[in-house]
Parts: sequence; structure tokens; C-alpha cells
Amino acid sequence: MTISSALDALAPLLGDRLSLRAADRDAHGQSESHFAPTPPDAVAWPRDTEEVSAIVRICADHGCPVIPFGAGTSLEGHTLAPHGGLTLNLTKMNRILCVHAEDRDAVVQPGVTREDLNTHLRDTGLFFPVDPGANASLGGMAATRASGTTTVRYGTMHDNVAALEVVLADGRIIRTGNRAAKSSAGYDLTGLFVGAEGTLGIITELTLRLHGQPQAISSAVCAFRDVPAAVEAATQVTLMGLAVARMEFLDRTCVAVVAAASKTDFADRPHLFVEFHGSETSVAEDAATFAEIARDCGGDDPQVATRPEERTKLWEMRHRAFWSILAHHPGKRAIVTDVCVPVSALAQAIAETQADIAASRVPGPILGHVGDGNFHAALLIDDDSAEDRAAAMALSAQMAERALRLGGTVTGEHGIGMGKLAYMDREHGEGWDVMAQIKRALDPDGLMNPGKMLRQPGG
Amino acid sequence: MTISSALDALAPLLGDRLSLRAADRDAHGQSESHFAPTPPDAVAWPRDTEEVSAIVRICADHGCPVIPFGAGTSLEGHTLAPHGGLTLNLTKMNRILCVHAEDRDAVVQPGVTREDLNTHLRDTGLFFPVDPGANASLGGMAATRASGTTTVRYGTMHDNVAALEVVLADGRIIRTGNRAAKSSAGYDLTGLFVGAEGTLGIITELTLRLHGQPQAISSAVCAFRDVPAAVEAATQVTLMGLAVARMEFLDRTCVAVVAAASKTDFADRPHLFVEFHGSETSVAEDAATFAEIARDCGGDDPQVATRPEERTKLWEMRHRAFWSILAHHPGKRAIVTDVCVPVSALAQAIAETQADIAASRVPGPILGHVGDGNFHAALLIDDDSAEDRAAAMALSAQMAERALRLGGTVTGEHGIGMGKLAYMDREHGEGWDVMAQIKRALDPDGLMNPGKMLRQPGG
Repeated sequence: MTISSALDALAPLLGDRLSLRAADRDAHGQSESHFAPTPPDAVAWPRDTEEVSAIVRICADHGCPVIPFGAGTSLEGHTLAPHGGLTLNLTKMNRILCVHAEDRDAVVQPGVTREDLNTHLRDTGLFFPVDPGANASLGGMAATRASGTTTVRYGTMHDNVAALEVVLADGRIIRTGNRAAKSSAGYDLTGLFVGAEGTLGIITELTLRLHGQPQAISSAVCAFRDVPAAVEAATQVTLMGLAVARMEFLDRTCVAVVAAASKTDFADRPHLFVEFHGSETSVAEDAATFAEIARDCGGDDPQVATRPEERTKLWEMRHRAFWSILAHHPGKRAIVTDVCVPVSALAQAIAETQADIAASRVPGPILGHVGDGNFHAALLIDDDSAEDRAAAMALSAQMAERALRLGGTVTGEHGIGMGKLAYMDREHGEGWDVMAQIKRALDPDGLMNPGKMLRQPGG
Repeated sequence: MTISSALDALAPLLGDRLSLRAADRDAHGQSESHFAPTPPDAVAWPRDTEEVSAIVRICADHGCPVIPFGAGTSLEGHTLAPHGGLTLNLTKMNRILCVHAEDRDAVVQPGVTREDLNTHLRDTGLFFPVDPGANASLGGMAATRASGTTTVRYGTMHDNVAALEVVLADGRIIRTGNRAAKSSAGYDLTGLFVGAEGTLGIITELTLRLHGQPQAISSAVCAFRDVPAAVEAATQVTLMGLAVARMEFLDRTCVAVVAAASKTDFADRPHLFVEFHGSETSVAEDAATFAEIARDCGGDDPQVATRPEERTKLWEMRHRAFWSILAHHPGKRAIVTDVCVPVSALAQAIAETQADIAASRVPGPILGHVGDGNFHAALLIDDDSAEDRAAAMALSAQMAERALRLGGTVTGEHGIGMGKLAYMDREHGEGWDVMAQIKRALDPDGLMNPGKMLRQPGG
């Protein structure tokens, strides 16, 4: 009944797909978060669902924690092993099992990344829209209820996962949901496991909703005199029902970094990057309406990019923003915050955050998915500076508290993991206890990704 | 510890808002389903959340079942009281508490109906899109995860409920979700209570997502040579990304009834009724593309309706279809089925269902939300005929089994209640046990709307 006895029992099942080597453990004990590395006792690379089930059963028998691991791109320490145990690296389960083009769904294993899937789909006229920036695994994206630049149009993982296969804490394999467009048959178990961060079970298969590649796309970039003007324009775009598929805000600091990295001239002001999907006519109409909105809101004339290479350049700048920020601040690391507020409160939330950052010792360019009211500050710290780290933590707490005050959430898309645990009580109140009741019902021994999301013993 | 002692304890709290009168009990023991009336022991009309909480606490103390009741439009016996107990009629909790126009959400009590809300919203430029046909209460629509004609564009209740207030089985009041556009903070409790049919708690407040009233609307109606042609056209509309907001299929039998009732000439063939939402340009473009698709698929030239009165007439015909069917068959009642399949299987599912109906003793016009793969047969029976009833039940079972075989669900939008209980095991397998585990965790005494959705004692 120990982790060690669990590993002994697993060895014959897994052979060289079980590793106790320090290098493997360390590689799975790192994270993009500010938490100290906490390696698991071992790493396993299961091949299929039955093997995941067998592993989980053995771990259950021996009281060994199980931590699922995809691409390792979590920003909140979801894959750390603070209680030790076994990390399940799911990257060998990376097959695209089926694409049902007419039904616009794809069945995939959890280790498939979103870029793999979209490469596979290229010639089908379909695509999978959820885009968190990183080339995350689809299992991990479902587990953290990820979203990103295209969510304003296509939704989050919550909206784009139709069905799941899940291995429960006792090794049972269940299927949730189905391939129909909707169902009102029973509790929404799919929705429960999406965003559960592996604390209720291991996702071993996903049925994902696909979307038609747009017939036409137009992009535009536009400078605004200040944050409220840019946010007001974004709000108008939504209220007027333009078919906006991306709508990204970059504050002055962020624009300066992106401009330097891409050797592009941008005005020293906040910007919106937008993209419209539709027919040739509708995207032209939407781009023209956007230009009117921008002018009405104190923006410049938008630079419109309709040619693919122009658009690609624009969105590469946006997607590379985080790396550009890091490159611009050599020796620093970024603590990336993530709050989401009702859009009516967005201008206030960004302005107050900028003021907090200006008053602090750490720089923090801001960028965000403003159609959703979601934004991030990349708080740049010297990893060796306890003062920097404390300042960043304080800023992050201010942002979270403000988001809750304004009717929003402490995480729009990065999830709770270990990083946002401290805010769960404030955000959910007794609802957090209900989550614990569900957790105890499905994982009474607390072995599924322990140390994350739920109230911790003594916490 | 009896129902009777619960009612004694409730009397001083509720005064004349607690009724044990036969007329009130009977009115709440009827349903639109084929189940025999099963009245509760009493009916209460709570005024606010605190009162619901106090009532539920008393019922929990005395072991008294609690059944939430909205507009009573459920088709699957959701509001029956097979174990007796107290029905909570929530129609006095019918206030629209707040509309946040800029954030496009509204906060309402559960007794507000969808028509009440849309009347209230008329001048805001916004509307609440989910339209199950009946003027259901929004609390009931959330509880059954309702959807309807506009789901192809705007989604189901699952997609349009942002946050809830819920009274749990022990009387605790929790809030789930928030007003931000998205969140990845913890288990999706909102999604768990939406569709839980009152078996996990009583919804006492809803935050609903609103949508912009479309700038322009165009509708069209089109006859097709056969079912596969109509379904193929519907599929093409979706695959080509037209901004379709409604796409309704009516089979020949149904068209004949609707034509007779509305004194309109319709060809004696299956029809699609479609509606596009967008800008003036885009809806004209979409209507033109639809005409091309229709011709390519063996349809007639669509009759396009752009004037509001023409559109209203068209959709009134569709919305009145059920009443027209009943009026066309005097003395009969309708058992309304509800299955949803992947759209690639829809033509097959409808054709096989038509063949089953043709071979049976009961007529059954078919109509459906074909953009979602969801369709209904209105099986017309003589209420006194055991043979009719048996034939309808057999047809319903054939439809459900077929839907599951084809990768779909036994209910697209009507829910489980008592009517679809028999299929839960087949649809969910061990997932049904997981639902029971969650139910036991949150309602260990099984007092919240017992007899519905979950495996029954001895079942």
C-alpha cells in the first residue's frame, strides 16, 4: 500500500514504458508556473485506454497518486506532483481515430496536439478552432477547459468537446456524451470532466466538434488613443454582431515589444488586432463596419490585411507576443496572469491593472482576448529576486480580487491547478464544497491529480 | 419524519401559499406525458430563494420529496409526484431582476417564461434565443436542458445559461458560474445543474446569455422530392456555413396537416422551413445560396419571405404544427417522441421511422430541427385504446434504439423525466452509475424530484 509497491506492481505491465530515472522524473516535475519543481516518483507512457485503466486500478490498490500529463504547457502547475506518485504521460496515445466530415466531428486520443489535428484536417474544409497559443495536447486542453484567440467566435473547450472516454479513479472506463449535436439525456458528464483538471479521472479519448474553414478571412489592426477607446470599439463590434473570429487587445507596452520584435511600425498606443470570418462579401462588410466603429471610438484608420501572407504575419506577431516579451527582457521570466470580467467592466479592469503595475517594481505588458473580457499581464521578474516574485504575486492577487469584485472569474482559460487554489473559496463559496462532495464521490481516496483545484487537507 | 409531519411544519411558514386542496394537487399531478396522474401531497408557492431554502430544509428533516414545477409543459412527466411529497410551484418567483445590455446577459427568477423575457427585452436590441415552442418557464427550460428551433444557430440552454443560484437538498444556497464570458475555475457546476431535472437541487435564479436581435432576417420554405433530398440540402446549408438560425423539416404527413390548418397551398412533399439572420447583404446572399443548394438537391425554387408579416405567418404555421396535428385528428392525443442523431444518419433515421410508422396502427407526422439532427414524431393515439398506446410505445422504443445505434441520443431536448428512464442504461452504461454517485453525494436521501432520471430502487 505504498507508491513504491505500486511501481513494483506496474513494472511487469509497462516494461520500459515505466521510468524511475531522475531525468524523466525531473522533466515531468517542471512547469511553466512559479512553483518549485516537484517530480513524481515515476513516469509511465501508456499505449491505450485499457492500459490506463489497468494502471489506475493498480495505483488505486496501492494508494498511489496519478497525474495525467500531455504537452506540459500548463501555466498553473497542473502537472506537478506535490504528493509524488505516478505521472501518466499520454503522448503515445496520439492517434486521430476518425474524422466524420459530414457530422463535423473528430475522434482523437488525448495526446494529439491541436496543430497535429489541424494539419490532418487541412484538406477536409474543416478545422478545430480552439487556439490557446501553445501547441497543447487536446486532452490537456479539455482537462483545463482551455480557450484562446478564437473563442469569441467558436467557444471554449466546453463548447467544442462532444463526448469523452474517461478512466475513473477505480479504473472503470466510461463514455460520456455522444455524436449528436445536442442531448438532454441526464447529467452533463462531458461538461463535468472538461475542466476537471484530471481530478476526477483520466481522459483517454475525445470527440471534438469541428467547424467549416471560413470561405473568406479579413484581418485588421488599429491603434486607439487609450484603453477605454479600444475596449469601447471591441464592445461595439460584439454588440453590432460582426462575425468577429479574433479580437485581441495589446496595451502600449505590449505593442512596443511586438513592434520591436517584428521590426514593424506601430503607433505607441494600445491596439486591437481583429479578424473576421465569413463570405467574401460579409468579411468586406465587417471590415468596413469595423473601420467606422474604430473612427467613432477614437481609433486610427485600421490597416486591413486580406492577403494570407499579411494575415499570417499579423497573427504570428500576436502569437509570438509572449516570446517577444521574454526576448525583450533578457534574464527575466514571466508570471502570466489570467482574469476574465464582464465586458462592461473590462476597460476599468485593464486601466486599474495598468495602474497597479505602474506602481509596482515589475513590468507587465498586457494583452487579452477582449471579445471575451479575458486578459493577461506578463509580469516580468528576476527569478532570483524574492522582491520581484512577491510584487508579481501581489499584482496577481489584486487582479484576481478585482475580477471577482467586477463579477468575473480568477481564470478565464488557464485553469486552477495549484496557481489559483487560493482564490477558489472566494470565487465559489459553498460551491467549492459541492465540488469537494463530487470529488469524494468519484475519487474517495483522493488519488487523481491530488493537490490541485480542491480544498487541500488543512486548507 | 413523514410527509404529513413536513406539511404540518411548513404550514406556519407558508400560510395560504401551501395548499392541500385536491384541485391544486390534481393540477400539479397532470402532465403532457402518457403517465397516469400522480398528484403530490401538497403544493407550495414560495416567494423567494430564502423561502425555498427554508422549505427544502424542513422537507429534508421530515423525509418529504420536493418536486419543482414551472409552466408544466414537460413532455416526459418531469413534474409528476410518483412518491408523493411537496410540489414547489415557482411561478410566483417571476421577476426579471436585471438586464446587463452591454454584457448581453439577464438575471431572472425561475418562474419567468421565455416570452415574458423577450417581451421585456424588445426595446433593448437583444433577445433570448432558446425556443422550445411552448412558453415554458426559464427555470424549467434550464432544468431539462431545453432547446428548439433556433438551436442550430444559438445553442441550447446548456450554452445560454451563464450562472445559477441553486438550493441544494440540505437547504444550502449556492451560486455557480459568473457573469464573465468564460471561466476555467473548477468543475462546471452550472452545466451540472442545467439538465439535472431538479434531481440535484432547485434552481432559484438564472443568469442567461442574450444575443443581438439580427439586423436582417430572411425566411424561405421549400419542397423536396423526398426525405434524403431535404436532409441533404439541410446538411449542405450547415457545411457551407450559411448563417442559418432555424432549419425545420416537415414530412409529407405533417405538411398536409399544416397546409390544411393554415389554408395554404403546399406541395404534397417533405419541406424545409429555413431562416437566416445577419446583415441585409448576408441574409440575401444566404437565401440565394440556399436556393442554389435546394435546386442541386432536387428541391423546388424556395419561396422567400423577407417581410415580417410573411415570416411571422410561416413560423406561426411551424409553431402551431402540433396543435394543427391534434386538431386534424379529433379525439386523439399525441405521444411526442424526441431523438437526435448525427446529421449524417438523419435521412436514414427519418426514413426508417416513417417505415415503422407506416407499418403500425397509429399515424405519426414527423417534424424536426434538422440542423441539429433532432426530430419528433407525434404519435396519435386513442387514449382509450390499449393497442394504440402499445403501438406508440413500441414505435418510441424503436426510435430510441435506432438513435443509439446511429451514435445519437434518446432525447435531443425533452429530457428524461419518467418517460425515457428505460433507455438511460443503454445510452450511458456505467456513466449512469456515475450520475447515481453524484446524486447520492448531493442528495443522499433521494428527496429531490424522486422517480426521475436516475436508476430507481429495484430498477
